[in-house]
Amino acid sequence: MVSRNSKLRVIPLGGLHEIGKNITAFEYNNDIIVVDCGIAFPEDDMLGIDLVIPDYTYLLKNRDKVRGVFLTHGHEDHIGGLPYFLKEINVPIYGTKLTIGLVETKLKEHNIINKVERIVVPVGKSVKTGDFKVEFIRTTHSIADSAALAITTPVGVIVHSGDFKVDYTPIQGEMIDLQRFAELGKKGVLLFMCESTNVEHQGYTMSERSVGVIFEKIFDETQEQRIMVATFSSNIDRIQQIVNSAVKHKRKVSVVGRSMSNVVKTACELGYLNVPQNVMIDITEIKNYTDSQLVIITTGSQGETMSALSRIASNDHKQVEVKPGDKIIISASPIPGNEKAVYKVINELLKKGADVIYEGLMEIHVSGHARQEEIKLLHALVKPKFFMPVHGEYKHLKAHESLALSLGMDKKNVFIMGIGDVLELGKNSAKINGTVPSGQVLVDGLGVGDVGNIVLRDRKHLSQDGLMIVVVSMEKETGNLLSGPDIISRGFVYVRESEELMEEARGVVREALYKCERKNVTEWSYIKTLIKDTLRDFLWHKTKRSPMILPIIMDI
Amino acid sequence: MVSRNSKLRVIPLGGLHEIGKNITAFEYNNDIIVVDCGIAFPEDDMLGIDLVIPDYTYLLKNRDKVRGVFLTHGHEDHIGGLPYFLKEINVPIYGTKLTIGLVETKLKEHNIINKVERIVVPVGKSVKTGDFKVEFIRTTHSIADSAALAITTPVGVIVHSGDFKVDYTPIQGEMIDLQRFAELGKKGVLLFMCESTNVEHQGYTMSERSVGVIFEKIFDETQEQRIMVATFSSNIDRIQQIVNSAVKHKRKVSVVGRSMSNVVKTACELGYLNVPQNVMIDITEIKNYTDSQLVIITTGSQGETMSALSRIASNDHKQVEVKPGDKIIISASPIPGNEKAVYKVINELLKKGADVIYEGLMEIHVSGHARQEEIKLLHALVKPKFFMPVHGEYKHLKAHESLALSLGMDKKNVFIMGIGDVLELGKNSAKINGTVPSGQVLVDGLGVGDVGNIVLRDRKHLSQDGLMIVVVSMEKETGNLLSGPDIISRGFVYVRESEELMEEARGVVREALYKCERKNVTEWSYIKTLIKDTLRDFLWHKTKRSPMILPIIMDI
Repeated sequence: MVSRNSKLRVIPLGGLHEIGKNITAFEYNNDIIVVDCGIAFPEDDMLGIDLVIPDYTYLLKNRDKVRGVFLTHGHEDHIGGLPYFLKEINVPIYGTKLTIGLVETKLKEHNIINKVERIVVPVGKSVKTGDFKVEFIRTTHSIADSAALAITTPVGVIVHSGDFKVDYTPIQGEMIDLQRFAELGKKGVLLFMCESTNVEHQGYTMSERSVGVIFEKIFDETQEQRIMVATFSSNIDRIQQIVNSAVKHKRKVSVVGRSMSNVVKTACELGYLNVPQNVMIDITEIKNYTDSQLVIITTGSQGETMSALSRIASNDHKQVEVKPGDKIIISASPIPGNEKAVYKVINELLKKGADVIYEGLMEIHVSGHARQEEIKLLHALVKPKFFMPVHGEYKHLKAHESLALSLGMDKKNVFIMGIGDVLELGKNSAKINGTVPSGQVLVDGLGVGDVGNIVLRDRKHLSQDGLMIVVVSMEKETGNLLSGPDIISRGFVYVRESEELMEEARGVVREALYKCERKNVTEWSYIKTLIKDTLRDFLWHKTKRSPMILPIIMDI
Repeated sequence: MVSRNSKLRVIPLGGLHEIGKNITAFEYNNDIIVVDCGIAFPEDDMLGIDLVIPDYTYLLKNRDKVRGVFLTHGHEDHIGGLPYFLKEINVPIYGTKLTIGLVETKLKEHNIINKVERIVVPVGKSVKTGDFKVEFIRTTHSIADSAALAITTPVGVIVHSGDFKVDYTPIQGEMIDLQRFAELGKKGVLLFMCESTNVEHQGYTMSERSVGVIFEKIFDETQEQRIMVATFSSNIDRIQQIVNSAVKHKRKVSVVGRSMSNVVKTACELGYLNVPQNVMIDITEIKNYTDSQLVIITTGSQGETMSALSRIASNDHKQVEVKPGDKIIISASPIPGNEKAVYKVINELLKKGADVIYEGLMEIHVSGHARQEEIKLLHALVKPKFFMPVHGEYKHLKAHESLALSLGMDKKNVFIMGIGDVLELGKNSAKINGTVPSGQVLVDGLGVGDVGNIVLRDRKHLSQDGLMIVVVSMEKETGNLLSGPDIISRGFVYVRESEELMEEARGVVREALYKCERKNVTEWSYIKTLIKDTLRDFLWHKTKRSPMILPIIMDI
């Protein structure tokens, strides 16, 4: 039942602070397609949370309409949520070869590989499903086989940039398909959805190849020492360049870190990483080679506590021990929030005598995201009727809006969306019309969504001043104190050093309970509140701290 | 008893990751002088900690030798620890006028102002105490009245840079006294201790005055809107420049935030901030003026949760409400670790329609620390025999060593110290010889040093997965279960949503306890361990989480 007035609905459903990231739904009458299905990493105040997935209640409610998930590239924030999603809504997934390859590793880990239909779509090709036709367009990014999407709908064409940079000299494969963007633009694009990560930065992002030049320089200068390089496991082109330099300098390559090993294996199998025979060695074999014969590629460029590089830095890695003279390249920028952890690792490595090359000292990293001039180029090619900046915090989207306006776009044709907002599009119209349920679902261990605000508030409270448990047993009938109060504390103060304080605290609570006894108060809720208030006031006065106080009354 | 072979001992006692910061001791025979007495801010893993002060056990043990504390400038990481220190070791404090003024505010808050001798030393003047003569040398930094110190000792002269930049056009007072550094260098400097904050950055730090030029540009372009500027409260020169622009554009100035109000008051009283009459208005008066007549200066440039700007951004400030069109300048860089908090505030302000100017968009902030070329200049003037890089993480000190070597210094004359290391100096010799007790003392509320590793570990554990309390009452003689097990959880999972899980958990523990009963086990420690192990295994299997488990057995 397609009415002539049917509208296309575009709904960014995911992202934590970055709007329009992780997952987006496109709906037309009885068809919904989903673009990407990623995770976000927990904020500092999400204590104990492992990862954050989008709330796709809306898709669950409309599960019969969902035709498939189209993936732009293989980064965690675009594919990491798939196992959770597919367990609830089992639809085919579409992506380029490497993207599907990386997803498959994930599906195997979650034991659902056999239940999910995976369809590899080469760049330049399209898939029809329901009222949609989705074309994959080659782009360049910090992971190989990235794609933008051109989604043809009954009301017009939508171009979604995915994550991209304009790299004219990529390491693997061809450059971004600018001609196709131009062709689509020439024919007419209704809506352009464009990423905004680096929109605050002027100029161009350098080509990935520029990093290789620096690697070559470092390898040339490094004769005797062992070389280690830490980088993102998903940056296969970076790894390829390290391998290339290693081969040229007759060094063997060994890989440490679980995610690095996984990705390298997949990339080699699928032909995205070309390593000559007898170059790659297992990490257990490095003892058979001299330092000048070795390159170790490792995870941990973000200072992650359990990563290989952190373990190496703290002498806690089984196979690799850092030693004076080791040349260690941290080929990455710290993601905001990770600076201190990264610096800590650098300090540790330097203290052990290693020669550490990190960002700022040499140009050993480039971003995978377009800066202003590249973003302008895509706008100029696509020349859309309507524009929705995506993949960014609010400040990025506003900056991207300014950029679009500077190119002559009309402000009323720019749509800065909130998560869950619905953009309703006709052939000549666009407006934000309503919202659907949306938000974040916290994953903690096996629990999906069972940790909410109350639990997080308690964790926060416990983390700040610890807790005090007051245990009392009372005679059921009379309310007479049978034993206690006993006080147990954790995370408040080390008890052996403050027995006096604890003894005083017990005295104060005991006194309050005696008063109850004398007044024949037997109402538990009253007694509990009394214990809490008495102890809280006492502790605040004595220590200016507010631990969580848990009174426990046992009736006998 | 001064032997001819007496040595000077230089001991960096403070700093968390930044070595040689916060506090340094200089010891010669029976005299010790202390330079600075600051605090560090807690690391992410120091849950609930308010601030970190140095462990000055060594000075307590030698308290009779301590002659005084010499302050380089009035920043928290150089004066914030004084109240704690002076309560234990009451010696005179020496500093320039503004520095002492800022300390006095602090001493008043701690009610020890009347017990402490404060001596104002103008730059260019010296103080003799024991075997030391300490001269204050004018420098420029992000707080007015900063000084380097030239410490004349029986074995030679030590120059300590304090925190500095080479600003030829400072806002207040004269430029850094380069001639004096040259004169000292010409006569011969034994040891140069130089700060390393920006040593990784090439070039020069711009003059503070360059920020004023941008402020003028913004004020010129802003006709109708209200202007707000967030900056560091201690940056009096920055505040002066805002006031200057305000006066020029006939705007009134109002100040919000406790620390900002304190500093502005002190700086005005002491003549470091010049505000014409009738320019400053109380924040309660802003309602009497139009937007075009107002500038509000506020704290919160680091996104601190309780700061004025954060409250304004979240509509939680009593006097100031942000509105569309407000022009808000964040005149600061996020200190590493604060990025996310700062971005959150920017996003909130933008969402409320404000026009926010932050770092990267315009040059609205400069650092107070010297970059490579300025540091080289000081090295070239001072030309010391020995060199100790200070004020930096290990990576900064190593980079500063490289810089010194590039200027021709001999590597064996450079001393990279650890906290507590002792550099022993003779007239022609220097070596690291031993260590003294050192480290950090955590301050939590009124407690100084009572929160240690065990407490922090517990807080960390509690913050990750919360806790479960298992309460059981048993008959004292027989070990028979009288009541329970009852399970209480906090921060684990929201109980109403998981009653089934909790019921199962109770069952598992009950079963384990019955087994004990049947076997007549009455040993409490055994039963407690059993409860812990049983519940831990059950919960890990069910949820992949490990809350803290606290078994409580009441004997009746």
